[in-house]
Amino acid sequence: MKLPLEGIVPPLITPLKGRDELDVAGLEKLVEHVLGGGVHGLFLLGSTGEAPGLSYRLRRELIERVCSQVNGRVPVLAGITDSSIVEALNVAGCAAEAGASAVVASTPFYFPAGQEELIGYFEHLSADLPLPLVLYNMPGFTKTMISTETVHRLAEDPKIIGIKDSSCDMIHFHRLLLDRPTREDWTMMMGPEELLAESVLMGANGGVCGGANLAPRLFVDLYSAALRADVAEIRLLQRQALQLGNTLYRIGKHSSSMIKGIKCTLSLMGICDDYMADPASRFHEAERQKVRDAVSSPEMASLLK
Amino acid sequence: MKLPLEGIVPPLITPLKGRDELDVAGLEKLVEHVLGGGVHGLFLLGSTGEAPGLSYRLRRELIERVCSQVNGRVPVLAGITDSSIVEALNVAGCAAEAGASAVVASTPFYFPAGQEELIGYFEHLSADLPLPLVLYNMPGFTKTMISTETVHRLAEDPKIIGIKDSSCDMIHFHRLLLDRPTREDWTMMMGPEELLAESVLMGANGGVCGGANLAPRLFVDLYSAALRADVAEIRLLQRQALQLGNTLYRIGKHSSSMIKGIKCTLSLMGICDDYMADPASRFHEAERQKVRDAVSSPEMASLLK
Amino acid sequence: MKLPLEGIVPPLITPLKGRDELDVAGLEKLVEHVLGGGVHGLFLLGSTGEAPGLSYRLRRELIERVCSQVNGRVPVLAGITDSSIVEALNVAGCAAEAGASAVVASTPFYFPAGQEELIGYFEHLSADLPLPLVLYNMPGFTKTMISTETVHRLAEDPKIIGIKDSSCDMIHFHRLLLDRPTREDWTMMMGPEELLAESVLMGANGGVCGGANLAPRLFVDLYSAALRADVAEIRLLQRQALQLGNTLYRIGKHSSSMIKGIKCTLSLMGICDDYMADPASRFHEAERQKVRDAVSSPEMASLLK
Amino acid sequence: MKLPLEGIVPPLITPLKGRDELDVAGLEKLVEHVLGGGVHGLFLLGSTGEAPGLSYRLRRELIERVCSQVNGRVPVLAGITDSSIVEALNVAGCAAEAGASAVVASTPFYFPAGQEELIGYFEHLSADLPLPLVLYNMPGFTKTMISTETVHRLAEDPKIIGIKDSSCDMIHFHRLLLDRPTREDWTMMMGPEELLAESVLMGANGGVCGGANLAPRLFVDLYSAALRADVAEIRLLQRQALQLGNTLYRIGKHSSSMIKGIKCTLSLMGICDDYMADPASRFHEAERQKVRDAVSSPEMASLLK
Repeated sequence: MKLPLEGIVPPLITPLKGRDELDVAGLEKLVEHVLGGGVHGLFLLGSTGEAPGLSYRLRRELIERVCSQVNGRVPVLAGITDSSIVEALNVAGCAAEAGASAVVASTPFYFPAGQEELIGYFEHLSADLPLPLVLYNMPGFTKTMISTETVHRLAEDPKIIGIKDSSCDMIHFHRLLLDRPTREDWTMMMGPEELLAESVLMGANGGVCGGANLAPRLFVDLYSAALRADVAEIRLLQRQALQLGNTLYRIGKHSSSMIKGIKCTLSLMGICDDYMADPASRFHEAERQKVRDAVSSPEMASLLK
Repeated sequence: MKLPLEGIVPPLITPLKGRDELDVAGLEKLVEHVLGGGVHGLFLLGSTGEAPGLSYRLRRELIERVCSQVNGRVPVLAGITDSSIVEALNVAGCAAEAGASAVVASTPFYFPAGQEELIGYFEHLSADLPLPLVLYNMPGFTKTMISTETVHRLAEDPKIIGIKDSSCDMIHFHRLLLDRPTREDWTMMMGPEELLAESVLMGANGGVCGGANLAPRLFVDLYSAALRADVAEIRLLQRQALQLGNTLYRIGKHSSSMIKGIKCTLSLMGICDDYMADPASRFHEAERQKVRDAVSSPEMASLLK
Repeated sequence: MKLPLEGIVPPLITPLKGRDELDVAGLEKLVEHVLGGGVHGLFLLGSTGEAPGLSYRLRRELIERVCSQVNGRVPVLAGITDSSIVEALNVAGCAAEAGASAVVASTPFYFPAGQEELIGYFEHLSADLPLPLVLYNMPGFTKTMISTETVHRLAEDPKIIGIKDSSCDMIHFHRLLLDRPTREDWTMMMGPEELLAESVLMGANGGVCGGANLAPRLFVDLYSAALRADVAEIRLLQRQALQLGNTLYRIGKHSSSMIKGIKCTLSLMGICDDYMADPASRFHEAERQKVRDAVSSPEMASLLK
Repeated sequence: MKLPLEGIVPPLITPLKGRDELDVAGLEKLVEHVLGGGVHGLFLLGSTGEAPGLSYRLRRELIERVCSQVNGRVPVLAGITDSSIVEALNVAGCAAEAGASAVVASTPFYFPAGQEELIGYFEHLSADLPLPLVLYNMPGFTKTMISTETVHRLAEDPKIIGIKDSSCDMIHFHRLLLDRPTREDWTMMMGPEELLAESVLMGANGGVCGGANLAPRLFVDLYSAALRADVAEIRLLQRQALQLGNTLYRIGKHSSSMIKGIKCTLSLMGICDDYMADPASRFHEAERQKVRDAVSSPEMASLLK
């Protein structure tokens, strides 16, 4: 794996057919769909992948299938975020065996931890990991912000190779960029797709854009425009990306709306099933109709082709 | 198991010797210590038990050992709170085999769920559970409050037998009491020990008091005084209970302070090890000395004997 | 004024006829209504009194009218909570001239302050106050909790005579009671009426019950039952008090629902107008009908007579 | 006043000599300092101006003095944010008489309001305002977010001419830009200076940068670079702006740290006093020394000249 990681690394949704059953055919189509759009890597078992809602058996199956299918075309990153370090390491072991390139871990997410506790945790984790580790800042779900000082401390560990920031706090991300570790392999990825363009303009390496499950090319193009500092093109593509989210991610209520919207759209595109892990459930017909209406507009259809 | 559950049901801390190793001898002593204090049940694998930080293997071992040791002397409840319903059911299956009396589940704790999602979740869970289910309201860690309306809906399911409320929101608990389901077997337990007395005075069935790991007799006596509405005695014992917490639970920083204080005290009492699951870690010597000083006061020593 | 303050001290709603116009006749009726119910004091210009939404001119008029009407029958407390200490002192000066017994101040509520800032603030305030000061803990609106340590420090100032706690955090209140300053004149009042009974049972001096605007006798009786530790009577009256709130305070949305419910009910009782200060507005007819239906039940009618 | 407003409009700190006394000479120097740096307008009585902590008398004096001194060289905006609409209108009346160009109002900040309440509030306010109104989104202090839908509704009122967004939520700001009202006079200003560059790159009209009290030229240059889409220059100046904040705004604790840091630096620059309105207080000598050390570095000195 070339470091730093660069480009668009979609947090893959997990196609399911039931509570503990992968949609195997859908998963294969989805992987080819996003690779076909030119993405630079895949991130399995993130929040968008509903990882915390899946059994460990299914997580292992997912990692193995995708690593095997991708077969080195792009790096595959596997999420190991867990409230138990033992289980996180178990998933990491499976990822190493399957040929993943790195693992991604947020903070334990039941008890909110202090910063010195986080430092200890990631040091313990890293010491026993068979793969490089990307930090994952996701305070909205974990209740714990990884501070800039903590990132700095952890960047002394060569096995920790970067951070994906999903705090939605752009000021925090600017501070991370300002005090960026001097290592040449250090990777900084933006989580929310709405903040991809400005992050890359300011020096980030890329983004983990949920919308790239649907429209991989759009986000690859936006990333490229930002790399070139082509502001006119950025504004145009940013509008399309925002429109995608405004149209498809806010139909339901609750924190699951974005994932439901993506899965429902993918099912309408004929790519995979839209079964959701408990406690979420797929859209009912009324909401599905809204998605159908949205994606049938010429503008949206051209984004999703 | 007689319903409703009544009395003091300590949320047992989990004695550990290492990252994935139970302190078996310590666990045995701890169980006899609390049973010796007259408690009315045991609750394994709650927040105080650090459940989310433990491997599933260790959780199973804990359930089996405690059920075997208790051998029917009091009901044993097993926590199955999980972000994945499949894993929650796996632990529940183990609890049923080991002879536990009921399971206890909070909401999935990564994605914050809506109330209708919660209703669906608990219905799905209950349908496949081999044991009765006690709801567990713990919004401070799960980010999701179980509303009074949701409790009402779920109380229509005969397999759901009650609720443990750890919201720290006494107004919410009064509303739960006011609209108590009319079932004779419905159990209402208060979580925080500081609110035990008034909860029982107002009609609750008992409490899941963390401090009963240390001073089981104190909380059993406080429960009894509340049952008898002996307000003078309540005030006296309540002072002692509050003093216990003020002295021992607030030495560290972070949400882990209470558990660290309990474990450190138990280790000084010669009962069990104070190893903490990641990302927490046991008190350093300076903090341990504070605990040593606190428990050596005659007043505290008499509570802990 | 006898200290500590004791009993039921309603946070009087402010009857308005328009944006900057008191409902003078309604105010007179309301004062006699609550005094007729046996309350032990009046608290003007609290949150329930919509104080932050009123002009200073109107606040002064309110204080003068009520002090004059009450004419020493019970102590009158005036809220001076403000984001500006200068304006807080201006209102306090008016209260002293009008004959109020004490003032009540929460923390400045725009910038959230630190505890040492709070200590400085209340010391500065107290130094220039012409009347004794009751602290008011209202973190839900001010974003700032007054910690037990801060209360302790401030209790060294003889002009600060107690605290009204509206944190809704009963554990915090127990800690305040446990570490109660040893002064004989120190007053501890509970804010939320749902927590009045247990607070008095455990040693508080009384409550600032919003519902006493409507049903003063009910809360006076509940206070008396708690003083006598008559638990059977407490349970009975507590149910009625909770029912009152469940029925009347939760009809609207937003934080203004309780005040709207009280004002609407008072207007239906023929006591005063239900005009609300901006940005709230009185109930529309649909919501008003719900209140009408509620108060026409025989049970509710007997509480409100 | 030309609309939309454009460029850098510093939220002027309020130089004080005491609790209710302006530092008149310091205020004059400060105004010339920032105008000398090329700023495009002045915003009085914002959060950085400590407005909620000041008496109304002092607010009026401030508005009059600054309007008189500026004498039309740039537009002067006056903050009227208040928990009472009557008092907000009083300040607005004074601003109109003094010759201010517009007023700026956030939501009432004691009771958190619902969106329909906000719409009503701003309509009531606008109806009686003698000047155009800029909305001010500041949920960190007011507890109330002005939603994109609410902004859209309010943009139908020609007297409401734009919004300053200080939510620190860049995703929200992108949504505001995406759904920008089609009026040619509509102004969109970014609050936090860390987000100025990307906001202007994406189409905003400018920023209300607190740091422009200290280094007006830096922010004017950053704004210009963003207007020209000169990404290399933006990165350079953005680093300097971030460094300024990292060095000077985070010395104290609490929400007042930024204002304290700015005032302390201005006092070391010989511009004005650093007295802070209650409950904050100026830095003690140890913190002042840190500021002194910071500003004596050649890099910082060149920014602040």
